Amino acid sequence: MRAKIYKDMLNAKSVIRETFAYGAHRAAQIGYENVFDYSLGNPSVPVPDKFTKKMMELLETKSPMELHGYSPTLGNQTAREAVAVSLKKRFHLDYTADHIFMTSGAASSLAHAFRAVTVPGDTILTFAPYFPEYGPYVNLTGAKLKVVPADLTSFQVNFQKFEEMVTADVTAVLINSPNNPSGVVYTEDTLKALADILRKKSREFGHDIYVISDEPYREIVFEGIDSPYMAGIYEKTITCYSFSKSLSLPGERIGYLAASPLDGDGKTIVDMCGQISRGIGHNCPSSIIQMAVADVLEDTSDLSVYETNMKILYDKLTGLGFSCVKPGGTFYMFPKALEEDANAFCLKAREYDLLLVPGDTFGCPGYFRISYCVDTEKVKRSLGAFEKLAKEYH
Amino acid sequence: MRAKIYKDMLNAKSVIRETFAYGAHRAAQIGYENVFDYSLGNPSVPVPDKFTKKMMELLETKSPMELHGYSPTLGNQTAREAVAVSLKKRFHLDYTADHIFMTSGAASSLAHAFRAVTVPGDTILTFAPYFPEYGPYVNLTGAKLKVVPADLTSFQVNFQKFEEMVTADVTAVLINSPNNPSGVVYTEDTLKALADILRKKSREFGHDIYVISDEPYREIVFEGIDSPYMAGIYEKTITCYSFSKSLSLPGERIGYLAASPLDGDGKTIVDMCGQISRGIGHNCPSSIIQMAVADVLEDTSDLSVYETNMKILYDKLTGLGFSCVKPGGTFYMFPKALEEDANAFCLKAREYDLLLVPGDTFGCPGYFRISYCVDTEKVKRSLGAFEKLAKEYH
Repeated sequence: MRAKIYKDMLNAKSVIRETFAYGAHRAAQIGYENVFDYSLGNPSVPVPDKFTKKMMELLETKSPMELHGYSPTLGNQTAREAVAVSLKKRFHLDYTADHIFMTSGAASSLAHAFRAVTVPGDTILTFAPYFPEYGPYVNLTGAKLKVVPADLTSFQVNFQKFEEMVTADVTAVLINSPNNPSGVVYTEDTLKALADILRKKSREFGHDIYVISDEPYREIVFEGIDSPYMAGIYEKTITCYSFSKSLSLPGERIGYLAASPLDGDGKTIVDMCGQISRGIGHNCPSSIIQMAVADVLEDTSDLSVYETNMKILYDKLTGLGFSCVKPGGTFYMFPKALEEDANAFCLKAREYDLLLVPGDTFGCPGYFRISYCVDTEKVKRSLGAFEKLAKEYH
Repeated sequence: MRAKIYKDMLNAKSVIRETFAYGAHRAAQIGYENVFDYSLGNPSVPVPDKFTKKMMELLETKSPMELHGYSPTLGNQTAREAVAVSLKKRFHLDYTADHIFMTSGAASSLAHAFRAVTVPGDTILTFAPYFPEYGPYVNLTGAKLKVVPADLTSFQVNFQKFEEMVTADVTAVLINSPNNPSGVVYTEDTLKALADILRKKSREFGHDIYVISDEPYREIVFEGIDSPYMAGIYEKTITCYSFSKSLSLPGERIGYLAASPLDGDGKTIVDMCGQISRGIGHNCPSSIIQMAVADVLEDTSDLSVYETNMKILYDKLTGLGFSCVKPGGTFYMFPKALEEDANAFCLKAREYDLLLVPGDTFGCPGYFRISYCVDTEKVKRSLGAFEKLAKEYH
């Protein structure tokens, strides 16, 4: 077996998966309802009925040959057009189907974006705290992921560190807002300052620096929060989207890559994605899923439960003395642990059947992630456990 | 835009796609029914009703969270078990779910297999005539595809050339039987001789040489033909399968990779696939499609039309003086052109609205491919056009 790199990866442990496995084990002992599992980012609300009805209608009325036949390389044309129309309406940019490439979820969208704008040896920058899968996603392309340390006061961008780290080998910057794990939404000021620095550095180095904007949580934004759209602020932006969270369809692997209409190279990037697919074995998402999603693009699951849960937890935790930047969206929050070692803190939390993920894995030691995509009833029942945990530290 | 390699690929023309595009253009002029389009390998018979019924049942009865939630990294457990049970029963090998990795069609299965057993710089051998996508599929991994010249008398294996070409840099051999484009099924003698050479060369070089067996046409085998199973003959075999052809589901992107139970490293290879996925953006096929396929694994579409078409065309063409190895399966045949330059021959055929693909693209100049996955009625109507074409050469 030649590919030692993948064999070696089998020995690495994912803290998130280990925590989830512990939860399943513990649930078998004391009952599922008594384990407060805040480890996984799995949507907890169903897909809208409209999607299910559309699926049934397609199965009942469309010819199987048309329904299950090969999609065009860049995706089902109706789906591409529907995405373009929706983005144009929402963000006032001249999207057409030519800017859209249908993908098997955000992971596939990112896999194409990285390969379109970097070559092996290049550096991609991202910002702590960050989704830990970005590491293997980027590094296995041959490019190198480097992480800008967090601005711990706001979880916006640490611009001083960022500017130092934008060196000539940087050809892309990967952002994720609303953010996993902090729940923070980047402000317009943050995005504009990012764009200004990247324009300046692109001129200085004589090459483009793309922003790859990973936006699976775009639709989960809380009251009073504005989530500005990077592709309208910085022309060299590739937007990576997934319907996993907005429509609660993570298993169906459906999303898209959108090149900014402000980018003169945007349509070429989309065409290149069709070639990139040949190398990585991606040949379009499921045909029926593309057709069904095209019909419910502007719908979402009932996402209000996430804001309800956030408020309950945020109020309780800050009341207990936790320090926490208030989430503007997603179904995550990222408080500071009550001791320096967040791993020890999360092990202590397990004694109260609270399953939390230490921040080290997100590039932010000393913090921990709560994934509150769980039933509100369970969130309420978990508050006593947080109380007992906090008491240990007073 | 850094990734020049993909941009440059945009300029390359696919003869198959160009022919298909010409057919669409011509159909607009003279009517779809008057164009004899033998260019594409798109199944022409519908998926079995049982699949559609299962899809409806899943949508009606399963909780949306369970139906559309994340699949495990290596695939839906029920689907993996169903595949293992079926393979065990058919091929008398000790398959378990641990040998099976669910993939988004054969392209994705191959993308994982190449990365599991080669590293950049290695050579993968395949045999002419071959599916032209193998070129980019392999070369974009960093390994190099080299093509063993065809045995033109039988389209089995040219063993003399093969043995010369198995050098120390070869770590995998890619076979495709039943074969696209020849329709030929490798005999047991062919596969055993292949295995013997590879065992000898593995010992000589001190490293494994894997066979990657691409078998999307396994279920389309004609009367009297036996299609032996490579994973039972050679232990270091990875089987790549797709339901695209057997169930007429090419757009749903569903297949699997199966490591041979005879290979002590087989289960490790499957585990490695889960890591390879992280780098190439593959996170399982669609969840609902995995569940539905698990229920209809042993069914197929009504594939008899392909044998009917083959017989009509084979009898007619050999009667007209074409030289052609009789297909043992698939929906392809690969006759010798009536002039040395198959490109010129195929252009001449267009004058009779016969769309054929010249063999150069399959590594076999002088031959042409007929994809007879079309209605039998149309096949019959096309015979006159073949007659007129042949007359030009007498």
